Amino acid sequence: MYDVIIIGAGAAGMTAAVYTCRKKLKTAILSIDIGGQTNLTSHIENYPGTGPMTGTELMQRFQNEAIGFGTEFIMGKATKVDKTEKGFKITLANDEVYECKALILAYGKVPRSLGIENEEKFFGRGVSTCVTCDAPLYKNRETAVIGGGNSAVEGALELATIAKKVYLIHRRDSFRADEVTVEKLKNHKSIELVLGSVGTKVTGDKNVDGIEVENISTKERRHLKVDGIFIEIGYVVDTSFVSHLVKVNEKKEIIVDERGNTSHPGIFAAGDITPVLYKQTVIAAGDGSKAALECYRWLTGGKGAILDW
Amino acid sequence: MYDVIIIGAGAAGMTAAVYTCRKKLKTAILSIDIGGQTNLTSHIENYPGTGPMTGTELMQRFQNEAIGFGTEFIMGKATKVDKTEKGFKITLANDEVYECKALILAYGKVPRSLGIENEEKFFGRGVSTCVTCDAPLYKNRETAVIGGGNSAVEGALELATIAKKVYLIHRRDSFRADEVTVEKLKNHKSIELVLGSVGTKVTGDKNVDGIEVENISTKERRHLKVDGIFIEIGYVVDTSFVSHLVKVNEKKEIIVDERGNTSHPGIFAAGDITPVLYKQTVIAAGDGSKAALECYRWLTGGKGAILDW
Repeated sequence: MYDVIIIGAGAAGMTAAVYTCRKKLKTAILSIDIGGQTNLTSHIENYPGTGPMTGTELMQRFQNEAIGFGTEFIMGKATKVDKTEKGFKITLANDEVYECKALILAYGKVPRSLGIENEEKFFGRGVSTCVTCDAPLYKNRETAVIGGGNSAVEGALELATIAKKVYLIHRRDSFRADEVTVEKLKNHKSIELVLGSVGTKVTGDKNVDGIEVENISTKERRHLKVDGIFIEIGYVVDTSFVSHLVKVNEKKEIIVDERGNTSHPGIFAAGDITPVLYKQTVIAAGDGSKAALECYRWLTGGKGAILDW
Repeated sequence: MYDVIIIGAGAAGMTAAVYTCRKKLKTAILSIDIGGQTNLTSHIENYPGTGPMTGTELMQRFQNEAIGFGTEFIMGKATKVDKTEKGFKITLANDEVYECKALILAYGKVPRSLGIENEEKFFGRGVSTCVTCDAPLYKNRETAVIGGGNSAVEGALELATIAKKVYLIHRRDSFRADEVTVEKLKNHKSIELVLGSVGTKVTGDKNVDGIEVENISTKERRHLKVDGIFIEIGYVVDTSFVSHLVKVNEKKEIIVDERGNTSHPGIFAAGDITPVLYKQTVIAAGDGSKAALECYRWLTGGKGAILDW
């Protein structure tokens, strides 16, 4: 039984953990990754006080500090939250269950998935949503990137410096990225463009061994032999597993007051999962601190604020 | 003519400056000090990403980064803000005038003053409100500290490690600080307690040369020869010079929406000058970033938010 479980290990969640730990609350962070969206920034220079560094490096510092104050980290995906007599019960994708008195939701946006056969089954066993994080695992191996936006294009170029082969699978026939970048793509000897096509099925036994793709106009199918598949089709808000408890807005973001109270007593939220207009590391950190202090106030008998309880 | 003038050089103001400068807005910070309330923390370990350090050191980093992005610093006290056709005109205590298109108020709390004769005249010339900042100027000299709270008591002890003599002037006959600390005070050979007494007048020609004190019950007066007087009687909210423009609450704090908009178009606020419940460096930084981005949005034609314009 934790005092607080924080879902999400980005700037908001890890700052919240620093604050709850310093208030001597038994704290765990539950997350599918460490660093969240800040990881996507290769050069962050507007988080004041640290000087420029990579987003990943900054988030490692946050994690080290959270661990230093006593935060436990549980890696996994929360799929269900239930209200219990004493607080909340969280069920993970692997059926593990954790309990806590209060809950801070700070898991930001989550990578969008394709929704194709075997995609989820191979998540972490060949299917990845983060080139920057996982590219080093595919040195001299064959890979595919799916998507046509900036992160897919830049991901393919980054991956091609490491992998032997990169298929870039895109449903359209052209890219929105700027011309210089697209030229680089087209001229890269390790990159093969698979345009006007969609992935239809991930194949493999224990690990990924390929992907089936279909040409949208000709319906022609082919099987690409790859060890790694990077799905780079953006991020989405997913509050489906908590929206029976907390109010969400029309974008499915969790509505909070100015201190991070949600509509449910004992549940707080901060960072990109809330309607905050500006998605910045320092803003997420500040709002994580507010949610943590409000959580402490609530656990120690303070009346919650404001959202029509 | 600046695009933005930010009043206040604490965590909120300097973070706002980093953000407005990175948006290529011509930015000045106007402040009576560098660092604000964070300076009062001798060991800050809950601003994530930097590891522990002194508050002053952290604020120096903020300042270096703000300067690095192009912020100009103007040292001085704003006493008057007028609306002009193109924006705002700010008048300083020394009658200098600066103009800007938009204004961010981030000057937090300001040191409370005694309101006695010559106090303001000698501000910066022997009268100080920050032992930590100015104690090194008084090596082997005679000084007085006025106040009875923690900051006065700890200030006197800190000053006594540097100055030859410290008078601690307190209107009551006892201190609220804990017994151990009070014992240290009483036993310190360089500290002389002047209890049940108030300062009535600062004396000097160009610089401070003493202070007149009066015993509250006997009305007896004496003149203490000192070079430095530290007024450590807490901090107050002072919005008197802007409250003809922006709405304030019953505590005189500037009312903002969740993005730092005040009730006046083109004026934004962040940090301890707003009603934010939790006064933390990381919270002030996050809210400073929001106010800066909202200011940028307004200057570039975005509609302001929310406070019933």
